[in-house]
Amino acid sequence: MAKETKISMAIIRRLPRYHRYLGELLNSGVTRISSQELSKKMGVTASQIRQDLNSFGGFGQQGYGYNVKDLYDAITKILGLEKTYNSIIVGAGNLGQAIANYTGFQSWGFKLKALFDVNPKLIGLKIRDVEILDVDLLEDFVSKNPIDIAILTIPKERAQEIVDRLVAKGVKAFWNFSAVDVNVPDDVIVESVHLSDSLFTISYRLNEDELFKKIKEK
Amino acid sequence: MAKETKISMAIIRRLPRYHRYLGELLNSGVTRISSQELSKKMGVTASQIRQDLNSFGGFGQQGYGYNVKDLYDAITKILGLEKTYNSIIVGAGNLGQAIANYTGFQSWGFKLKALFDVNPKLIGLKIRDVEILDVDLLEDFVSKNPIDIAILTIPKERAQEIVDRLVAKGVKAFWNFSAVDVNVPDDVIVESVHLSDSLFTISYRLNEDELFKKIKEK
Repeated sequence: MAKETKISMAIIRRLPRYHRYLGELLNSGVTRISSQELSKKMGVTASQIRQDLNSFGGFGQQGYGYNVKDLYDAITKILGLEKTYNSIIVGAGNLGQAIANYTGFQSWGFKLKALFDVNPKLIGLKIRDVEILDVDLLEDFVSKNPIDIAILTIPKERAQEIVDRLVAKGVKAFWNFSAVDVNVPDDVIVESVHLSDSLFTISYRLNEDELFKKIKEK
Repeated sequence: MAKETKISMAIIRRLPRYHRYLGELLNSGVTRISSQELSKKMGVTASQIRQDLNSFGGFGQQGYGYNVKDLYDAITKILGLEKTYNSIIVGAGNLGQAIANYTGFQSWGFKLKALFDVNPKLIGLKIRDVEILDVDLLEDFVSKNPIDIAILTIPKERAQEIVDRLVAKGVKAFWNFSAVDVNVPDDVIVESVHLSDSLFTISYRLNEDELFKKIKEK
């Protein structure tokens, strides 16, 4: 069982959205916003936003709303984005390379220390100055370079094995893109991105009207 | 405002997970499962599963549990996965190529008809027999080849423009990987995958213990 959170994951998942919207407001030069406006912009009720923020001590003032910069900074800290994190990517195929090439993550303090792969054609290449290493070197590398987050962009058949090897070396957080739920001890964090789950919500929604027409006819 | 769903998105998002677990059970030769076992395996309460399934008419039998194959087939239909969908990818960089190369989606009926890019070095290349076309040909292509789902793997600055162009040509569903929420008419579906939102939940969780220690001390 992966590490449990003190606050519900539903709230935690809204925080990055709040952060993103507040960042956009800041960029547009907005300095104050009422909870009603913020709520309208984000499609969440004002009381939901207030409740979510109260989980962390509360922000904003009655009759004034929120100071955009202060709230943005507070959520930046809550999300741990004022720190830096060392990461590795295991699986240097297209998806691994896409993540390695995305400079946005680096600018938020997520530092990429190495990629790993089994493919001899990839080993030795560099992505933005970060080398692709032989996956056989995984334990050795992680022993010498403390890693906060391991990003898994490998086929599902390999995922559990790689997780076990990294957990044994003390890695405490995984960003898992493999199409399988991996097992970890209860002090380890796993955030899985199941792309097919996301895609299937689209096919569901494309068919929903027809589906309920059929259910009604029964 | 994007198209609203009849069933809450929270339920819809659990369906692909049920489908995935039931598929694994089927592959392991399991034919029947009690709602308690299914619930344990999925980390959702048995009553939650029952409620979710009741939204679609209900399945399973008291004192028997679920027939794995029947439930799997039913959820396959609910997810619209017995049909085929024509898709295009706009943005043939690493992420676009990663999605194009993932054969899993094709096997579920999501057919890739073309990729589009602005980069002359990419235009004309093929990914698994599917050509990368000049994004200037977007409207022309979509007029001649009806497209169900457009997958956006482009920088956020271009996302709204591409969406507007495709909506004008009748595209009704978008799988959006651009780091921005796009606006669409209310008969159009948008499913956004905000990778940084997902990553930031990891940095949050790595810091949660320290964060609450600080909040307590205040």
